[in-house]
Amino acid sequence: MTPKTPSESRTTMTDMVLPSETNALQNLFGGELLARMDRAASIAAGRHSRRITVTASVNHVAFNLAVPLGSVVTVEAAVSRAYTTSMEVYIDVWIEDRYNGKRTKANEAIYTFVAVDETGKPTEVPPLKPESDLEKERYAGALRRKQLSLGTGR
Amino acid sequence: MTPKTPSESRTTMTDMVLPSETNALQNLFGGELLARMDRAASIAAGRHSRRITVTASVNHVAFNLAVPLGSVVTVEAAVSRAYTTSMEVYIDVWIEDRYNGKRTKANEAIYTFVAVDETGKPTEVPPLKPESDLEKERYAGALRRKQLSLGTGR
Amino acid sequence: MTPKTPSESRTTMTDMVLPSETNALQNLFGGELLARMDRAASIAAGRHSRRITVTASVNHVAFNLAVPLGSVVTVEAAVSRAYTTSMEVYIDVWIEDRYNGKRTKANEAIYTFVAVDETGKPTEVPPLKPESDLEKERYAGALRRKQLSLGTGR
Amino acid sequence: MTPKTPSESRTTMTDMVLPSETNALQNLFGGELLARMDRAASIAAGRHSRRITVTASVNHVAFNLAVPLGSVVTVEAAVSRAYTTSMEVYIDVWIEDRYNGKRTKANEAIYTFVAVDETGKPTEVPPLKPESDLEKERYAGALRRKQLSLGTGR
Amino acid sequence: MTPKTPSESRTTMTDMVLPSETNALQNLFGGELLARMDRAASIAAGRHSRRITVTASVNHVAFNLAVPLGSVVTVEAAVSRAYTTSMEVYIDVWIEDRYNGKRTKANEAIYTFVAVDETGKPTEVPPLKPESDLEKERYAGALRRKQLSLGTGR
Amino acid sequence: MTPKTPSESRTTMTDMVLPSETNALQNLFGGELLARMDRAASIAAGRHSRRITVTASVNHVAFNLAVPLGSVVTVEAAVSRAYTTSMEVYIDVWIEDRYNGKRTKANEAIYTFVAVDETGKPTEVPPLKPESDLEKERYAGALRRKQLSLGTGR
Repeated sequence: MTPKTPSESRTTMTDMVLPSETNALQNLFGGELLARMDRAASIAAGRHSRRITVTASVNHVAFNLAVPLGSVVTVEAAVSRAYTTSMEVYIDVWIEDRYNGKRTKANEAIYTFVAVDETGKPTEVPPLKPESDLEKERYAGALRRKQLSLGTGR
Repeated sequence: MTPKTPSESRTTMTDMVLPSETNALQNLFGGELLARMDRAASIAAGRHSRRITVTASVNHVAFNLAVPLGSVVTVEAAVSRAYTTSMEVYIDVWIEDRYNGKRTKANEAIYTFVAVDETGKPTEVPPLKPESDLEKERYAGALRRKQLSLGTGR
Repeated sequence: MTPKTPSESRTTMTDMVLPSETNALQNLFGGELLARMDRAASIAAGRHSRRITVTASVNHVAFNLAVPLGSVVTVEAAVSRAYTTSMEVYIDVWIEDRYNGKRTKANEAIYTFVAVDETGKPTEVPPLKPESDLEKERYAGALRRKQLSLGTGR
Repeated sequence: MTPKTPSESRTTMTDMVLPSETNALQNLFGGELLARMDRAASIAAGRHSRRITVTASVNHVAFNLAVPLGSVVTVEAAVSRAYTTSMEVYIDVWIEDRYNGKRTKANEAIYTFVAVDETGKPTEVPPLKPESDLEKERYAGALRRKQLSLGTGR
Repeated sequence: MTPKTPSESRTTMTDMVLPSETNALQNLFGGELLARMDRAASIAAGRHSRRITVTASVNHVAFNLAVPLGSVVTVEAAVSRAYTTSMEVYIDVWIEDRYNGKRTKANEAIYTFVAVDETGKPTEVPPLKPESDLEKERYAGALRRKQLSLGTGR
Repeated sequence: MTPKTPSESRTTMTDMVLPSETNALQNLFGGELLARMDRAASIAAGRHSRRITVTASVNHVAFNLAVPLGSVVTVEAAVSRAYTTSMEVYIDVWIEDRYNGKRTKANEAIYTFVAVDETGKPTEVPPLKPESDLEKERYAGALRRKQLSLGTGR
């Protein structure tokens, strides 16, 4: 299979924070952000594999920054490494101030997806060919993360 | 006020079509697409004006293509012309086939937004400075659309 | 096919404005109103044709009036003219003040729907027979709108 | 306070059954219908009292008819009797077959609402003046229902 | 069929009250609570019968207590009596104060469900064997409620 | 502050999988499960601290089992260790077969929450006092997880 670059799977999902997604402090629920990241990452994995993809795991995610009601949130996901039937997807989240336009990095997250056929059986995916320095760094890190997770029995 | 380019307001909203948004033929409801386009265009208008923005009008929208359940839909919005307190936003919609990745233009739409302060009073916005040929063409077309709409009393 | 009157397709959808549908000024999103109008108009087109109906286009819509959180909104839709396989639907929107009951006209909109069979193929619909003066006026206007839209290549 | 008629509070809410509201047999959840009836009845009670209204009780409701996915459901609510600060609201539910337009009575339900001020304290409402035979019959029945409910300690 | 105890069907559904579910006083809509109780009761009926279950009726429900935005609400449902193909489900609702943890009984409700096969035809369910004193009391009350409802033609 | 046991914060959230939460294989989206776990864990953290709580991080989560449309899912969360202002919450997820009632462990997850006051400033929480063997094991593991996460700079 022909290798693909991260650009070919890059997925941008910009949207507002609505009142139904906020907690008692009027900030976005952590769980809602996890769900948005899952949808964006799943599209990225689908663009790389051109298959149905299912979430296999979520790596450690830290919520460093509250996301207030009315913010504009941008979730950007791209495949960072591909294995035989699975893909690691790296996700960056930015928040944008409505009035001065200042863009702040709010989160990074790493999800893993498996490509499956219509019966749910894992199927092969193309290899990933990183291009930029950041893409190469994440590509290398993916392998370390995989070994670490195998090593600790996760 | 310093002019801004369309790139500064360009907003990309990629998302899946979910079962709760589809009609009896398992295609996206026209109304759901109108609502998505409004959200993306409202963010674009907010990025240009750095103000609260409210939808003032929607130009003619044609639905040429059914958008089936499970499709990936990309809505891309950017301000196409700015007046004293209002902005025309041009929206392009693409559908992507999950399996072969073929991207098809599904719709174009034009919304108008007004920038307002916290009390709802219209406030000034920066002028638009188009750069690419397409941006210049849409900028010129905006004026004709405005005159046409004034001429017919709309 | 036996002609039908606008009364036979008239559809009334009264509902509240909920917090999850409002913007930063606590008013109904324009896009949410477009989606409600699409649902009401689609039911009206279904009542006229007794077929599955899909949104073909939306005419120019102006949002003249903010619709505050907690308002009661009434969307009323009826077929205004029928062609071979398509129908123009005229929609009137009223807002009602919770405390004094004052009813204000907020919007008018015109959507076009196509009647289709289970495979999505356009199918014939009955002609429309307007009765009241307003119905006759909208019936006549529909033809002008259709010609205008053909004339401008849309 | 000037008495009002049931027509002055009559509220019609017509809408489709969407996939997200249906159970394993692809029929509308009973609970979703209860929620729609509550919204329509609450608007009717608000139209009679011109106050904020809160649900006080729901009388016995029988679900005689399954409401399949894609049906058009019409919920019609009107105040059937008013007391000092509370109102009984009578609700009729019809289902409409998409293809032959046959309208079937699916449910009747009776909700009671209390009118309150901004602090939640009950406030007076106008008396009801029934006009049609059916309205008079429901008006008389309301008193019997109230006595029965007091008699049984409910 | 082997009898089952209420414990075998007992279902606990704890969740928050979200902004999209609240009225003008920032309290949970009565209709939303009716929908939550229906979902919990339907799961309880499914656990007793191991069949698809559909709501047959809702007994009188009184809303004695407002449920404010941000509250934690616990809905607990268990089958209280089983007949040939139908089950009475008893539901208790508690509200919990976020700050002092005080738990208050907010509602009781009684729903009836019918067990059906994939074609919607009623099918047999196991008998119920109450154990605790409260379960025995509700079991006995169920029969009286059934007779009362038959006696009044409901 | 008086220590609390895990039982005092244990939160059970049982609910169905609805069509609007499922992917192309008719299974629950991973992201929806992450959001449900966040809500349950947030309630557990609130019960322990009696404060507003915000999600600080999510540990590694593996999705071992597909959760099909119509399944009954039980999410059970309890605080597993408390620090000065933060709490680790352990979450167990079970799926239940509708027809034979077989209950399968689907996931485990670990979220961390911070207790805050109305201005968002971290505030002190009571210590945790584990009772059962499993609670003691998770309590001990929490410290190792914290050290590991500090050690790796996360």
